[in-house]
Amino acid sequence: MKLSKPLVLASNSPRRKEIMHNAGYEFTIKVIPTDESFSADMPVEEVPVFLARTKAECFRENLQDEIILCADTVVIIDQTNEESQVWPSHVRPSQILNKPANASEAKEMLRKLSGRVHRVITGVCVMTATETISFADTSYVHFKALTDWEMDYYIERCKPFDKAGAYGVQDFIGMIGIPKIEGSFYTVMGLPIHRVYEALEKYVLRN
Amino acid sequence: MKLSKPLVLASNSPRRKEIMHNAGYEFTIKVIPTDESFSADMPVEEVPVFLARTKAECFRENLQDEIILCADTVVIIDQTNEESQVWPSHVRPSQILNKPANASEAKEMLRKLSGRVHRVITGVCVMTATETISFADTSYVHFKALTDWEMDYYIERCKPFDKAGAYGVQDFIGMIGIPKIEGSFYTVMGLPIHRVYEALEKYVLRN
Repeated sequence: MKLSKPLVLASNSPRRKEIMHNAGYEFTIKVIPTDESFSADMPVEEVPVFLARTKAECFRENLQDEIILCADTVVIIDQTNEESQVWPSHVRPSQILNKPANASEAKEMLRKLSGRVHRVITGVCVMTATETISFADTSYVHFKALTDWEMDYYIERCKPFDKAGAYGVQDFIGMIGIPKIEGSFYTVMGLPIHRVYEALEKYVLRN
Repeated sequence: MKLSKPLVLASNSPRRKEIMHNAGYEFTIKVIPTDESFSADMPVEEVPVFLARTKAECFRENLQDEIILCADTVVIIDQTNEESQVWPSHVRPSQILNKPANASEAKEMLRKLSGRVHRVITGVCVMTATETISFADTSYVHFKALTDWEMDYYIERCKPFDKAGAYGVQDFIGMIGIPKIEGSFYTVMGLPIHRVYEALEKYVLRN
């Protein structure tokens, strides 16, 4: 698809690059390093769109005719029913799983995801000189109960240290471990392409 | 993953090959041309596993130590509420969408899928000399209302004539047109890899 303005994907994620490429967009990649901190009392649901907007704001100063596309994906573990009986929700709220620092953190995260449902929320910000659109898209991911062998084999083989929640939906553990998604697969992969398409629709040159 | 027996994927589908490869299996591909007809009064839900089993049966005669993996995927459009008021279900049952013969059939199929939910069922048969396991896995796919431009652009660009229902979930129209799946993405792509993994689990060499 040809667009009426140059498109810049502000992400180092190879998955986002692949999604945009496969959907037929032409774009360049430019990343400005950003402080990705956020207030500890921000509801977890608001974090991804906040971070996507924060990343986009770094481009504002030098913005000319381009469209800047930023995204941020978080993996959220909610309380189990058992936990919520012990901890009321304001004491022990939902928890964001970040990128694991090492194999032992990765395994701890996979243990938390094993045998339950979690949420993946991807926040997106599309910014031009005259307009900023931002939104979030949520998918629910059902993991089967993972065995030690499956987790160890995956961590050893795929080294998921660049992945929120220590897994990629397109990797071994995502393929064999996820019987069901409710929502968009691409939101879990890192970019809700159906929503990005909507946001970019008015720039498509149809001829 | 190393298996204790040689694995044969009996499919020409590049998607199935990609799924098996990405999940980490070593396998060869061997396809025996099969008569894919089935009885007109077979319930549509039973067709994919029937065809997967039919494809596997062609291998039985010369089967030695291999594991044969066969699959068949169907796209099923159910009656709309409106239609079911006019046609009782035994008169106008659910309909399988096959591979479109040309661009006009492809567009007709995409029009049927547009703005509604359909089912994708993949049947699988795993056969060895001593055992045959077969099963089916279902996903529900939600399509947004597609525009003429989107359908025409897709058909022109991707030529989906080798795809049941005239779309690939990993193609342009699947990326921008599907806000939600309920079930496995890989079942829609052509192989419920989480179930295949289960069926092959006892052959995995863990060392």
